[in-house]
Amino acid sequence: MEEESQNFVVFDTDVGTDDAWALLMLIRAEEKKLKNIKILGVTCVHGNTEIEHVVRNVFRVLDTVNRPDIPVFKGASGPLLPIPMDNNPFFHGVDGFGDIYEHGEDDKIFRRLQKEHAVTALYDFASKYPKKVTFILVGPLTNFALCMKMYPDFADKVKDVYIMGGNRKGVGNITSCAEYNFYCDPEAAYIVTNESRITKIILPWEPCLPKPEQKYTSLEWRLKELSAINNPITKLMDPVDSKCYGRVGRKQWCPCDACLMAVFLFPELIIKKESKYHVSVELIGTNTRGQMILDHKKEKADNARVIEMMHLENFKEIAEWTVGCNINL
Amino acid sequence: MEEESQNFVVFDTDVGTDDAWALLMLIRAEEKKLKNIKILGVTCVHGNTEIEHVVRNVFRVLDTVNRPDIPVFKGASGPLLPIPMDNNPFFHGVDGFGDIYEHGEDDKIFRRLQKEHAVTALYDFASKYPKKVTFILVGPLTNFALCMKMYPDFADKVKDVYIMGGNRKGVGNITSCAEYNFYCDPEAAYIVTNESRITKIILPWEPCLPKPEQKYTSLEWRLKELSAINNPITKLMDPVDSKCYGRVGRKQWCPCDACLMAVFLFPELIIKKESKYHVSVELIGTNTRGQMILDHKKEKADNARVIEMMHLENFKEIAEWTVGCNINL
Amino acid sequence: MEEESQNFVVFDTDVGTDDAWALLMLIRAEEKKLKNIKILGVTCVHGNTEIEHVVRNVFRVLDTVNRPDIPVFKGASGPLLPIPMDNNPFFHGVDGFGDIYEHGEDDKIFRRLQKEHAVTALYDFASKYPKKVTFILVGPLTNFALCMKMYPDFADKVKDVYIMGGNRKGVGNITSCAEYNFYCDPEAAYIVTNESRITKIILPWEPCLPKPEQKYTSLEWRLKELSAINNPITKLMDPVDSKCYGRVGRKQWCPCDACLMAVFLFPELIIKKESKYHVSVELIGTNTRGQMILDHKKEKADNARVIEMMHLENFKEIAEWTVGCNINL
Amino acid sequence: MEEESQNFVVFDTDVGTDDAWALLMLIRAEEKKLKNIKILGVTCVHGNTEIEHVVRNVFRVLDTVNRPDIPVFKGASGPLLPIPMDNNPFFHGVDGFGDIYEHGEDDKIFRRLQKEHAVTALYDFASKYPKKVTFILVGPLTNFALCMKMYPDFADKVKDVYIMGGNRKGVGNITSCAEYNFYCDPEAAYIVTNESRITKIILPWEPCLPKPEQKYTSLEWRLKELSAINNPITKLMDPVDSKCYGRVGRKQWCPCDACLMAVFLFPELIIKKESKYHVSVELIGTNTRGQMILDHKKEKADNARVIEMMHLENFKEIAEWTVGCNINL
Ligand SMILES: [Ca+2]
Ligand SMILES: [Ca+2]
Ligand SMILES: [Ca+2]
Ligand SMILES: [Ca+2]
Repeated sequence: MEEESQNFVVFDTDVGTDDAWALLMLIRAEEKKLKNIKILGVTCVHGNTEIEHVVRNVFRVLDTVNRPDIPVFKGASGPLLPIPMDNNPFFHGVDGFGDIYEHGEDDKIFRRLQKEHAVTALYDFASKYPKKVTFILVGPLTNFALCMKMYPDFADKVKDVYIMGGNRKGVGNITSCAEYNFYCDPEAAYIVTNESRITKIILPWEPCLPKPEQKYTSLEWRLKELSAINNPITKLMDPVDSKCYGRVGRKQWCPCDACLMAVFLFPELIIKKESKYHVSVELIGTNTRGQMILDHKKEKADNARVIEMMHLENFKEIAEWTVGCNINL
Repeated sequence: MEEESQNFVVFDTDVGTDDAWALLMLIRAEEKKLKNIKILGVTCVHGNTEIEHVVRNVFRVLDTVNRPDIPVFKGASGPLLPIPMDNNPFFHGVDGFGDIYEHGEDDKIFRRLQKEHAVTALYDFASKYPKKVTFILVGPLTNFALCMKMYPDFADKVKDVYIMGGNRKGVGNITSCAEYNFYCDPEAAYIVTNESRITKIILPWEPCLPKPEQKYTSLEWRLKELSAINNPITKLMDPVDSKCYGRVGRKQWCPCDACLMAVFLFPELIIKKESKYHVSVELIGTNTRGQMILDHKKEKADNARVIEMMHLENFKEIAEWTVGCNINL
Repeated sequence: MEEESQNFVVFDTDVGTDDAWALLMLIRAEEKKLKNIKILGVTCVHGNTEIEHVVRNVFRVLDTVNRPDIPVFKGASGPLLPIPMDNNPFFHGVDGFGDIYEHGEDDKIFRRLQKEHAVTALYDFASKYPKKVTFILVGPLTNFALCMKMYPDFADKVKDVYIMGGNRKGVGNITSCAEYNFYCDPEAAYIVTNESRITKIILPWEPCLPKPEQKYTSLEWRLKELSAINNPITKLMDPVDSKCYGRVGRKQWCPCDACLMAVFLFPELIIKKESKYHVSVELIGTNTRGQMILDHKKEKADNARVIEMMHLENFKEIAEWTVGCNINL
Repeated sequence: MEEESQNFVVFDTDVGTDDAWALLMLIRAEEKKLKNIKILGVTCVHGNTEIEHVVRNVFRVLDTVNRPDIPVFKGASGPLLPIPMDNNPFFHGVDGFGDIYEHGEDDKIFRRLQKEHAVTALYDFASKYPKKVTFILVGPLTNFALCMKMYPDFADKVKDVYIMGGNRKGVGNITSCAEYNFYCDPEAAYIVTNESRITKIILPWEPCLPKPEQKYTSLEWRLKELSAINNPITKLMDPVDSKCYGRVGRKQWCPCDACLMAVFLFPELIIKKESKYHVSVELIGTNTRGQMILDHKKEKADNARVIEMMHLENFKEIAEWTVGCNINL
């Protein structure tokens, strides 16, 4: 009965400061009984950093909010095609978390991992609760694509997926035309986007970019006012955000993966504009490998909802709520 | 002396109703002594229709405004790579001019062509007036690219080129990601855009598209009020525009090639926003062949000015001026 | 102790008449205690036919030689990239076995499958007997590649792999330049061939082709003299071979997968020439997608042994031995 | 009348030691009235060295045999697509002729060039003698392809072309899979090979390679015995061959372009095996860009004769004849 009304969620991540904020927001939602969220597990995937660092970072976040009960699974350590990526920018530092914290006692941490592989875990969750699990995918899509290739019926069992990745206008952040998560494993992104059986909500790169006419949540606010709420969460995240964003000199604070989580949890607050498209991924372009492809000519059936604009100014309240402020959202 | 101050122009075209408007505007400018324009010639290239139709359409336009003196040259009849294009939309009809007019007495027309090939003519014009000739390119870039490959010093002799073609955001009109002129000969577009010695002003596809927040010149105005100025030009163009635009059901009248001509002749009136970019063309993508590539990461030196927004509502006055109204622009 | 000296083998297949002969040969080897072969299992993969037919065909072969004890695992039902293949020739018939036999009582057959997925089975076998298991891969390489992507340490645990697939001289059988098994999943073939940690012996397509100067085992011999040995094996295989080869009008009988098995079991008898090369796979060519790439310039370290010529006339005796004749090989 | 029976030849070259031998052989044929050869001209193209060096080398050869009357034309200085080629091996030295000779008095040499562009010269020769001119193409195919793109009727006017370039089995000499001439301008090679109106005889790379079972003309013979015929030709060529071949340590002397000339002049002596194929060129492969593609599946109409094996031992006599020995061939 109770299960009937629960919103099961699996969080697939390559943490990443914005992944961390997304996970913190999700945990807060579960604890506040928002939308009856029930977190089934966190699956780790290569991406911003190597898989071992991802695992460490996930446990660091879980420990900060006293949630060692959430099961963590280790997944793919590299993309489907072993093509070297020379231009990895390591925005989030070598360890994906600003290279701030010590990595002691690894053995102990890896012993806390579930024995099951992340890929089979994805399948088992979907099989246990068919059409009831939402998958939030905020890293390269390798784990999810592997699961689809291993289990042809997986796609039928998925409720929906939320994806941070790709782009709408060919504006790239890792190459001239490609967004990081899709570029890290273009074949995986191709496999997932082209699966018409799966309901997909995609937050691409461009809505996360500052635009002249658009309000936003400022980095200054993040580092001053949000930091002033002095609790374990801000203590964990402050030095990471300070270091990662400090380097690149942006004014806006827009942690993409956390914005996707807001799209999932608070769509009315954050989504300003979205459209349906047939979405795919370019695999072989010299310049365009990894670029998300929108069928502008509308020759194929729409297969995804694509977020086009966000009320980024509203992220401020969502962030306050995430760190524990009592706000009604 | 006089030459010193003249603005020599060569018009390379695959006429096309919007090409026709561009040419009419250019001729009007010359006749009104605007900017000291001196038209050196019209070079024909395959594209909207086969090269023979292009030749016919050019003479049709020239005859309408009594300018048989302008020399016309026949150029390339197909793209560099002989890849068949199954999805030619023939927006402008099979003959590039709405299939309205009879094509009698071809022999006579082709005898009026210059003996010289368009490609060598491009080179000879540039050689005669080094750094003094502007090339307005409103078809596939085959002629211009061939000239560059034949004559390595051609690029040094060009003053500048105005190009209608490509796109800024991966919005295609012939494929999901490619604009017609670039897609018709992607290798030629690649050759021209990547030549850093040449000053390039590019009007891509997206600024020609209607946008909710943007004023425009309406098709209704074109077909009613502009038509009401009953003279040889409107008599020639009315049935063509009526048929070509009628088919697709647009509200906006934005003849791309003529807008590029306005960018050349009336930049203050028509350009709303432009930026500098390094511009190239994708050649091998499954979805992105022919897509214009902007170096969003700014890793390469800018090589073109790209028009991003236009005051399309101002095209109304420009069109009136083009058909002969006495307006001070 | 005993394990120490055993030659563990896993057979990955998309049966296929030549796969069937390969499996029969392997089983015969085990039964004759040749080279201390111990068959750990058969893993099924899409390819010549859909995965369900592959499963059926495997059990059909096992039942024919009374070996229901060999565990059978179901694997990937399609290639990594879901690109449609219009030109599937179905050499082996729609059901991979000449469309000769009835497919009754499917439920019963599928209940005989192991519960474990073929991909995890590959890993578990390698983990149980590290560096002791030979994998014979005679279908598309999807299962093996998925296992490599799921388990980064799998490659370290493999003893060696024998692969039927690819080509040496760009001679294709499914496209102008690609061999069937590699073309069916080029990304998988790329992943496997490029893994330098794995010892690879590859039998490409060309050595299986007739050559003017080369002796061979004739199809006539196969269908007359081998068939005359009237036993369950020939009864099973005769109508299949008769139908599949009859269609294409070859003189030579060279069941590729079985030749690879002979390369494994009887290298002295069957290998005429082999060389070491760095081997990879072309992924993006218009004509060459799936072509095996040899590093003719020797710029990269060799990563495979490539069979270049075979003593195909010796396959006659091997086939007689396979169906049960008492021959000393 | 006389013209009727003449064998008009145009020689398109990027000299190159093997080009030089080919040209010397052609001139000797004309002088010996072999097959009524009439040399119309030499057209220069980029390739082994930059176009200016090619021009110098051609005049050097012509002067050596006192043939300043043969008109020389300068053609394309680079490939259609300006893609940098990092791995140019400069087998023939930086100047294409072993960097042996001084390059004094350039002005004088360039004044000897015809004013006409090589590309228009190709067209004019074919137009003057329609279906009567053989084009021997021993460099990148840029000039010829440009002529085809400039003049759509050029292909109808050509008698036939002999091409040294491409490969049959994916054996490359500049990349793992591509032969030098085709790789230098793959798009040009694609344009020329795919033109079905033109009769093509292609000598690819592999027949020029030593094979265990095949007789050949040895480099030792070339450098000792042929050199012993002490005349202006050997004086010119000895240091060049000595230096170019000395570097690479081959046993066999097989100057590819000269072998192609022998295929043209002495087919019975030099051709051991040839086949008809549909031939094209791969443009976009990661490994296979520039590879010649044979339609092994015979799905397209044959469009070329491809030389597969040569009697390389017979080149010895041909070389002796070329330098002036009185041999009946
Ligand atoms: Ca992330
Ligand atoms: Ca046009
Ligand atoms: Ca098989
Ligand atoms: Ca050459």
